[in-house]
Amino acid sequence: MSLRGNVLIGQSGGPTSVINSSLYSIITEAEKYGFIGGIYGAIHGIEGVLNKQLIDLRLEPDEIIEGLTRTPGAALGGCRHKVQESDLETIFRVFESLNIRYFFYIGGNDSMDTADKLNKAAGEMGYEMRVMGVPKTIDNDLPETHHCPGYGSCAKYVATSVKEAGLHNASMYTSEPITVLQTVGRNTGWLPGASALAKSLEDEAPHLIYFPEKPFDIDSFLGDVEDTYWRIGGAFIVVGEGLRNASGEYIEVQHGEVATDSFGHPTLGGVSEFLRSVIERNLKIKARSIKLDICQQAAMHFASRRDVCDAMAVGRAAVKAAVQGQSGFMVTLLEEEGATGLAKLGSVANVERQVPKEWLNSKGNFVTADFLDYARPLIQGEVEIQIEGGLPAYVRLRKSFVDL
Amino acid sequence: MSLRGNVLIGQSGGPTSVINSSLYSIITEAEKYGFIGGIYGAIHGIEGVLNKQLIDLRLEPDEIIEGLTRTPGAALGGCRHKVQESDLETIFRVFESLNIRYFFYIGGNDSMDTADKLNKAAGEMGYEMRVMGVPKTIDNDLPETHHCPGYGSCAKYVATSVKEAGLHNASMYTSEPITVLQTVGRNTGWLPGASALAKSLEDEAPHLIYFPEKPFDIDSFLGDVEDTYWRIGGAFIVVGEGLRNASGEYIEVQHGEVATDSFGHPTLGGVSEFLRSVIERNLKIKARSIKLDICQQAAMHFASRRDVCDAMAVGRAAVKAAVQGQSGFMVTLLEEEGATGLAKLGSVANVERQVPKEWLNSKGNFVTADFLDYARPLIQGEVEIQIEGGLPAYVRLRKSFVDL
Repeated sequence: MSLRGNVLIGQSGGPTSVINSSLYSIITEAEKYGFIGGIYGAIHGIEGVLNKQLIDLRLEPDEIIEGLTRTPGAALGGCRHKVQESDLETIFRVFESLNIRYFFYIGGNDSMDTADKLNKAAGEMGYEMRVMGVPKTIDNDLPETHHCPGYGSCAKYVATSVKEAGLHNASMYTSEPITVLQTVGRNTGWLPGASALAKSLEDEAPHLIYFPEKPFDIDSFLGDVEDTYWRIGGAFIVVGEGLRNASGEYIEVQHGEVATDSFGHPTLGGVSEFLRSVIERNLKIKARSIKLDICQQAAMHFASRRDVCDAMAVGRAAVKAAVQGQSGFMVTLLEEEGATGLAKLGSVANVERQVPKEWLNSKGNFVTADFLDYARPLIQGEVEIQIEGGLPAYVRLRKSFVDL
Repeated sequence: MSLRGNVLIGQSGGPTSVINSSLYSIITEAEKYGFIGGIYGAIHGIEGVLNKQLIDLRLEPDEIIEGLTRTPGAALGGCRHKVQESDLETIFRVFESLNIRYFFYIGGNDSMDTADKLNKAAGEMGYEMRVMGVPKTIDNDLPETHHCPGYGSCAKYVATSVKEAGLHNASMYTSEPITVLQTVGRNTGWLPGASALAKSLEDEAPHLIYFPEKPFDIDSFLGDVEDTYWRIGGAFIVVGEGLRNASGEYIEVQHGEVATDSFGHPTLGGVSEFLRSVIERNLKIKARSIKLDICQQAAMHFASRRDVCDAMAVGRAAVKAAVQGQSGFMVTLLEEEGATGLAKLGSVANVERQVPKEWLNSKGNFVTADFLDYARPLIQGEVEIQIEGGLPAYVRLRKSFVDL
């Protein structure tokens, strides 16, 4: 049971506002066990193992570790590296030389695949270690878990932005009546859907939402927009970044509509900008586009407290499960606040969970009450952040590198 | 001195996070004077006068009026209408029929032109009234005033967004190392400049800032970006939305670089998206673009308290000056918090104040300490907003329309 050895933690994929809260809870939970020695961090996830860029997290001051719970970005750095067969030898040589017996990988679908490969390789090599996946993704597209840490804060920021920009847009109906806002989410509509939380009254933003799950038809879209415009005086539209037509092509490249520069290269400005120009050209109504991009993943200044708590819960649960002998699992979140479970890494890796079809309305241009009931609890509560000079004060790891 | 009659208030141009704080302070200050009868609001600024869309603000509940101080958008609606000679007859017929003797117009450069025209027309017609301009603009480009209400909150949001997205960007240097964020500001660089407030250390975002005031050269830009990338490992770049080359053309349309759709129409996706593609094509480094657009004007959830106080101060000062017999002025803000002055509307209308050349560094790709000393006080303090269900709770006027 009490496997003696050291801990290595990595963050992988793109950051979320709360990914460092999971890092915090893994560190502080691991510190509780006497049979755990070193607690190390891999810089840029598995790349840090391959490049021998590891830091000693026990040397970080307490106030820095505590500050992780209110700092966006990935304090250790994220990565997009998919582990190859040929990487395994280097990785396990590092593990052995540092006596790494616990590996916690905080990430999304691809990262769970990496964790799964390492867990299997350890088994095959007879190297005793415990590998646990700790979920994070603003996309909310991991299977087996009720929701994903990172989603609640992003949903709260998107809904707030739509509520605020919607008020602005409505103020300007007589001159600039239409806005198209694009959220993150290439294959799933959890984030555009969350914008519906901003709406209380029929004429409030958002008026129309379009989802990657539903084939997009430009003519129906223009009909929806025109109808809303004549009914309300304007329209606030939210779209997922990856909208495809019935043939599965991204709509920006449909009908040869892709914009090209003077070298003939495609310059995809994003779907919100594309739809803005489609509206202006076809309906002759002035429209704006918004692309919040990575501000969505990083808006710690208005994060969800529930989300921070969830992110801490999964980190803590991962350590508890590992010291109790579990390996090869991702921690999951249950519907009840603070409750966690475990899912086999193999059943999570590379699987994407879409918004259930029945949570979209019949026209596929808004969510149902079931979606709102699901998402609303996840944006509750605010996080107290430190302010210095009028701006959020965030921490940065000191980073004492380990000699390898 | 004590001119008996009614008050009319209009909001004009695009909203800011704090334009309703000026509306609030005009209403509550006007209520103090017994010789002021009705307090009316024009829906969509001067358009509301032309279309006889006026509401009775005395009939709004106190909690709604108080809630204006924490609600973004223009509660009365903004407009882009420039008053024509032919509009004046209708406007003054409405003024006379409602006995409007005080007209407060909250807006930017164009709106001050409208106010100036109405003030002059009243004088020529011998219609006794007091016309006061109340400044607002996130662009901070009005002359005669130390700074503009609306700028501080927008600057705080932009700097916060750059700080947060900058942490995200730095987390991903090994896979997605460059980000280009575009702020509002077609002719002036006050907002891209404000992003520099986010930076404490040399390697923190923003690394490079480009201003409408300075002719933009793509080759120097690419040199700056490449240099930053090799030195730091990535780059976070902030640009004003209106960058022009030495010939004064917008850079997106330079060298036939304008993207066109299948009908040959230009589709300007914004300068951040254009520069993103320029970087990827020329430097072969992955880059992202962010376009916050009207989220900048509406981010009440993280507004500057100083800015709210300034917006209230100019509204109050406008009423005080008007009841004391002044007309034809815009209220100005002095450097000292809470201090106001007056400037002739004619000296403000249609004049744009740019960032002083000496506040840009010699390469024109960052601000100097003087800029930071100017901007920093304007983002201080936070505003307590009400939260309901995890989102900001904003108010909406009931709007009792006046029979005309």
